[in-house]
Amino acid sequence: MKDAETISARLLSGDRLALSRMISWAEDGDDRFPASLSRIYSKVGRGWRTGITGPPGAGKSTLVNELARVFRQGERTVGILAVDPSSPFTGGALLGDRIRMEERTKDPGVYIRSMASRESHGGIARATVDACDVMDAFGFDELLIETVGVGQAEYDVVTAADTVLVVLCPGAGDGIQAMKAGLLEVADVLVVNKKDRDGADRLLVDLEEAVHTREVRTDQWEVPVLPTNAVAGEGVEAVIDAVHRHRAHLEAGLLESVRRRRRVDQVKRVVGERLEDELWGGRRLGDRVEEGLDRASTPYDVAEEVLASILGGNLGAPAGDSRSEAARR
Amino acid sequence: MKDAETISARLLSGDRLALSRMISWAEDGDDRFPASLSRIYSKVGRGWRTGITGPPGAGKSTLVNELARVFRQGERTVGILAVDPSSPFTGGALLGDRIRMEERTKDPGVYIRSMASRESHGGIARATVDACDVMDAFGFDELLIETVGVGQAEYDVVTAADTVLVVLCPGAGDGIQAMKAGLLEVADVLVVNKKDRDGADRLLVDLEEAVHTREVRTDQWEVPVLPTNAVAGEGVEAVIDAVHRHRAHLEAGLLESVRRRRRVDQVKRVVGERLEDELWGGRRLGDRVEEGLDRASTPYDVAEEVLASILGGNLGAPAGDSRSEAARR
Repeated sequence: MKDAETISARLLSGDRLALSRMISWAEDGDDRFPASLSRIYSKVGRGWRTGITGPPGAGKSTLVNELARVFRQGERTVGILAVDPSSPFTGGALLGDRIRMEERTKDPGVYIRSMASRESHGGIARATVDACDVMDAFGFDELLIETVGVGQAEYDVVTAADTVLVVLCPGAGDGIQAMKAGLLEVADVLVVNKKDRDGADRLLVDLEEAVHTREVRTDQWEVPVLPTNAVAGEGVEAVIDAVHRHRAHLEAGLLESVRRRRRVDQVKRVVGERLEDELWGGRRLGDRVEEGLDRASTPYDVAEEVLASILGGNLGAPAGDSRSEAARR
Repeated sequence: MKDAETISARLLSGDRLALSRMISWAEDGDDRFPASLSRIYSKVGRGWRTGITGPPGAGKSTLVNELARVFRQGERTVGILAVDPSSPFTGGALLGDRIRMEERTKDPGVYIRSMASRESHGGIARATVDACDVMDAFGFDELLIETVGVGQAEYDVVTAADTVLVVLCPGAGDGIQAMKAGLLEVADVLVVNKKDRDGADRLLVDLEEAVHTREVRTDQWEVPVLPTNAVAGEGVEAVIDAVHRHRAHLEAGLLESVRRRRRVDQVKRVVGERLEDELWGGRRLGDRVEEGLDRASTPYDVAEEVLASILGGNLGAPAGDSRSEAARR
């Protein structure tokens, strides 16, 4: 693990190539990542993580660009992670959007990185948290995590953030009504971008109403609904102000428990991936599955055999029993 | 497991309530499902499974309705499964679409069922395969599996099908260019719906070109690109003809291995879900994770401890080693 030692030392000394290398390791599931993370983990926890999600075309990339610009005016360093979890096929789809960020990349206080789902290593949410930890340890004040769309995978990704911005815009298509309900649950701040377009006022009113009429969130945070015109830079300061207020709100209360919960989720993801590799990476269990199928057993019968052979007596009761209790509760 | 015995017997005698019950068990992860599936599993494998996917608004539901109508004219029975894997929040979003299918539901040769993702039991792809197995054993000649959109989750769902139709239409929004590349990989038959609209001819030409210029599929099947106007019932027979040709193509060659591969995938899903329940369902490992986090270990360190305690010597080398080999290849 000499590589891991060297890279983590270089990262802590401010070497950007080391930063990029470690994020690649996280993305690839390289076994040097855990060792290098251990060496920088004490530095994690100082940056603020803001997630940006919303339907395609809402203007997320432009808003991220503007947020970075304003943060930089305030001398805050910014790490940007653009994540495309939607498909293993469209890797690189974000690159087009990123071209507009070109001006930012000339600024040494800004770091931009995109990640796409890869078929071989599923855990894009796990890799997102890892990449944020690395950027955080590197020392960025503000971390921006942008997703390409809305959906379960994007939802998993934005749960890596301390504050979640949901960006909508008027007339973004049929799906929007259906998505609103879900998006409202995730949002700490709602942004109506392209505020000069027809329908923006109506969308603002609808969202205000939706925010106020829904059940009160347990954390007592009232979600602000903010109009922006990101292309013109309008309304961006108000969004940043809302992020700061949400940060102060969490720091005064739930931040510790929220972050601990997130670390627990990350442990679960790592355990899940490791088990997946262990079980199906080699031919060890593959042969057993093939044998089971030859006897025309159902997938459940074969799965029981496989589980019995892995777990032995290590976990006690067979899976069926605990599920049955859960189902009958 | 008396329930399981009764329900499977009733299903095999043609009782639709038993059919619905078993699908609900599959959906809920009820422990009576595996036992009931065992009793009907010898009947699985006679129905043909056609998956229908494509972006929202392309007309998938209308096409499914028309496919069912034409199948019924040919005296073939039809089971329809409408799956919404995109979000745990939008359960029931498909119901609106389904209203148009009302006329079909009065026909005893048609069965319609919708399923949405649920937060508690993740495995929508697993439940889709289960539901198809159940409908297949019940005796439907044609199974139609429709998804609400496109994305990784929908991709997982349509892999349950023998033949995959990808439905597009002209002008369905910005995302379409980006999605095409991925959709083409999944499609056995490409349908350009709303063929009378502006841009349909262009889309047909583009798709033809994309199909012909891409690398030849290993299975030697040439993907047809077919125009339809599902609302008017135009072009639907040609789609069905293509499904039949694809069926004949598979039956003359790869069908056995494709279906076996699908059963292996299903075993993996069941094993994954069971392990998830076993590991995190109780407090057994939760406490261990909490202890690890208290020592400020990284998620990877804590995961190693958890894995060591589960697997003991059952699987040999620790996860890190096998991953390292893979990463360095």
